[in-house]
Amino acid sequence: MNHTANARSWVEHANGHRDFPLQNLPLGIFSRASQAPRCGVAIGDAILDLEAVLAAGLFDGAAKAAVEATRGGALNAFFALGSPARVALRERLLALLGEGSEHQAVLQAALYPASECQMHLPAKVGDYTDFYVGIQHATNVGKLFRPDNPLLPNYKYVPIGYHGRASTLRPSGTEVIRPKGQTLPAGQTEPSFGPCARLDYELELGIWIGQGNAMGQAIPIGEAEQHLAGLCLLNDWSARDIQAWEYQPLGPFLSKSFITSLSPWVVTAEALAPFRRAQPARPEGDPQPLPYLLDAQDQAQGAFDIELEVLLLTANMRERNLPAQRLALSNTLNMYWTVAQLIAHHSVNGCQLQPGDLFGSGTLSGPLEGSFGSLLEITEGGKHPVELASGELRKFLEDGDEIILRARCVAEGVASIGFGECRGTIVAAN
Amino acid sequence: MNHTANARSWVEHANGHRDFPLQNLPLGIFSRASQAPRCGVAIGDAILDLEAVLAAGLFDGAAKAAVEATRGGALNAFFALGSPARVALRERLLALLGEGSEHQAVLQAALYPASECQMHLPAKVGDYTDFYVGIQHATNVGKLFRPDNPLLPNYKYVPIGYHGRASTLRPSGTEVIRPKGQTLPAGQTEPSFGPCARLDYELELGIWIGQGNAMGQAIPIGEAEQHLAGLCLLNDWSARDIQAWEYQPLGPFLSKSFITSLSPWVVTAEALAPFRRAQPARPEGDPQPLPYLLDAQDQAQGAFDIELEVLLLTANMRERNLPAQRLALSNTLNMYWTVAQLIAHHSVNGCQLQPGDLFGSGTLSGPLEGSFGSLLEITEGGKHPVELASGELRKFLEDGDEIILRARCVAEGVASIGFGECRGTIVAAN
Repeated sequence: MNHTANARSWVEHANGHRDFPLQNLPLGIFSRASQAPRCGVAIGDAILDLEAVLAAGLFDGAAKAAVEATRGGALNAFFALGSPARVALRERLLALLGEGSEHQAVLQAALYPASECQMHLPAKVGDYTDFYVGIQHATNVGKLFRPDNPLLPNYKYVPIGYHGRASTLRPSGTEVIRPKGQTLPAGQTEPSFGPCARLDYELELGIWIGQGNAMGQAIPIGEAEQHLAGLCLLNDWSARDIQAWEYQPLGPFLSKSFITSLSPWVVTAEALAPFRRAQPARPEGDPQPLPYLLDAQDQAQGAFDIELEVLLLTANMRERNLPAQRLALSNTLNMYWTVAQLIAHHSVNGCQLQPGDLFGSGTLSGPLEGSFGSLLEITEGGKHPVELASGELRKFLEDGDEIILRARCVAEGVASIGFGECRGTIVAAN
Repeated sequence: MNHTANARSWVEHANGHRDFPLQNLPLGIFSRASQAPRCGVAIGDAILDLEAVLAAGLFDGAAKAAVEATRGGALNAFFALGSPARVALRERLLALLGEGSEHQAVLQAALYPASECQMHLPAKVGDYTDFYVGIQHATNVGKLFRPDNPLLPNYKYVPIGYHGRASTLRPSGTEVIRPKGQTLPAGQTEPSFGPCARLDYELELGIWIGQGNAMGQAIPIGEAEQHLAGLCLLNDWSARDIQAWEYQPLGPFLSKSFITSLSPWVVTAEALAPFRRAQPARPEGDPQPLPYLLDAQDQAQGAFDIELEVLLLTANMRERNLPAQRLALSNTLNMYWTVAQLIAHHSVNGCQLQPGDLFGSGTLSGPLEGSFGSLLEITEGGKHPVELASGELRKFLEDGDEIILRARCVAEGVASIGFGECRGTIVAAN
């Protein structure tokens, strides 16, 4: 499964690539010109067309079956095959793309510059669930309402989540149209209707479900990890003013459902293996997870150590050729629950998960300034605008602002890998 | 569009049928023996196989195109065609199944007893949204928490809704496995894990979306009605104890996602035309809907007059051959918002609706005892058990209990039509 830092590819620009060296090999759905969307693998600044490699006869056995399952413009059937198919494909790709491969000429013809390709969603999402397991975010947001008691009594027992909207999941690069809706202006008793005035982003991890379960059959915590296909980045765009007025008593609805952006590459569970960590110890006094959420193996290595970054590029910065400004640096170790715990919890009532279902982690803020994953937290609900290096101020997002999410895994003795970007630019309300 | 009471079918058992006389012609997906699921029309106690009628050459033009779109075991593509396709198919079916049809012999061969067929979900639901627009239910539930002020300030402005779980939508007759989950027992500060002890049903209208909209393009209230394909019954099974502990701050999740039952027949917007009514006047002092939710035509005839009924059949009643006992009689006129208002609201932020999306209305209780659509309301949160004619008591549902939802439309001068049943029996937790 070769993750060692010195494994090299004959695709030269892949070696030392920030996101997509040989050790990553993430899967996605792409298209070129008028081609139908198909499965590709990111390698350096290029995309390997698996359809073309299959046609060239370079896959057989389990790897061939795996690639056949990626057909049709969505990875759901491939996800359904679980880890063995991903491992078989990964091992074959390591051989094909590694230094010394005998098939370079054939493969070269199936490699396209990523800049010439359009990325699509990697799977047709049956259900999208958004969790709320960034405990620092929950604390920061809770403080705005309850300074002395920010977390609700259930928070440390229940991996809090809610159903999200699947129809408006979109790949990175899709423009974000400022939503309209009802809001209750400060000091008023009757709502107004108009464009959102408190538009925000949320830095989240996206979690792709592989094999599913039958309705009524809970997934035990000890098996939950087997249902993870891979990860991506997710921006849970949020209309704070619409949310504040609509969310009682059934939760966020139109304040979130206008769009949710995803980075298009699925970084597989196998590629992420070197970046697993013990679940950080719960602070003294926190309760133990209930037994259905507790597994020694999961506690020992169920967490991910992934650096997360948010950048803002305003229209003004773009015009002046200024670089995007970092708004936050955080890490997935801020998750209070592991991915396995999310899967076990989600299915414990018998709820059916299906291949290609998507979870969001919830906003992954860190505890300190500079690590907050939303403007709501950075500006304390708009009270303290952030001063940008361009001289601009921001309470919330303005038209023309682009938010860029990035993720990167770094560990000793293995090659660093990244997730690529999740970008979205705000455009004026219709 | 023949709705007159004296229009008769040569299918004799259809004439005067409680649910499916000639005037209804609801569409569904059924299968027999090992056949692949296909589209059928309910007529009396039989199902007409549209695939077989198509093969016999009895459709042409728009009706043929409509039937072709019903193929593949799901009605999504047919829904996408909107009202013209439904009208063309309906007119042709009225001719084929009406008295004097010249094709009786051919059609007879395509008619199967419904009792020999298995029903499936009529469409592959992309997203399922559950609303909360039964104002009597919202009031009754609110009273349990806030006796003097049951409705939250947003209720009369915002058609409250939240995203539901699509993967566990199931057709009538699917067993309901008692879910397990976390609950906070009265007087405790730490949660327990186990089978739900407060299992409940909710009487709801299901709303099938026909044509969709592009992301970013709100559906104006004046056009919203065109996006309605038809209606069904929906039982939003609810684990009240799990719900109470999990729902803050993001809404119901595992307390609802274990299963949601649907009646399998889509009663089309065209069949329902004679049962449209003016939206009941808002009580004095209630605010006017905001302009994006207000349309004169919708106010004048956007509501539905559909009688709704809930029955309970316990294991004890079944053994003793006692009839099911009615728990409630209600009506869709208890909706505070029209279907068009739900569609306009849902899309006003640019959220994309897709053909085959499903809405639940929320529990449709009436104002008086005998019209409450859940045990939560009937027993006031379990405080006052209901006494059944069998001598049994119920606070919440017990294993072996079957809940049966029915709906019926009655109006002068036209044939009554019904929805068929939505049934589900509770079985013990796994």
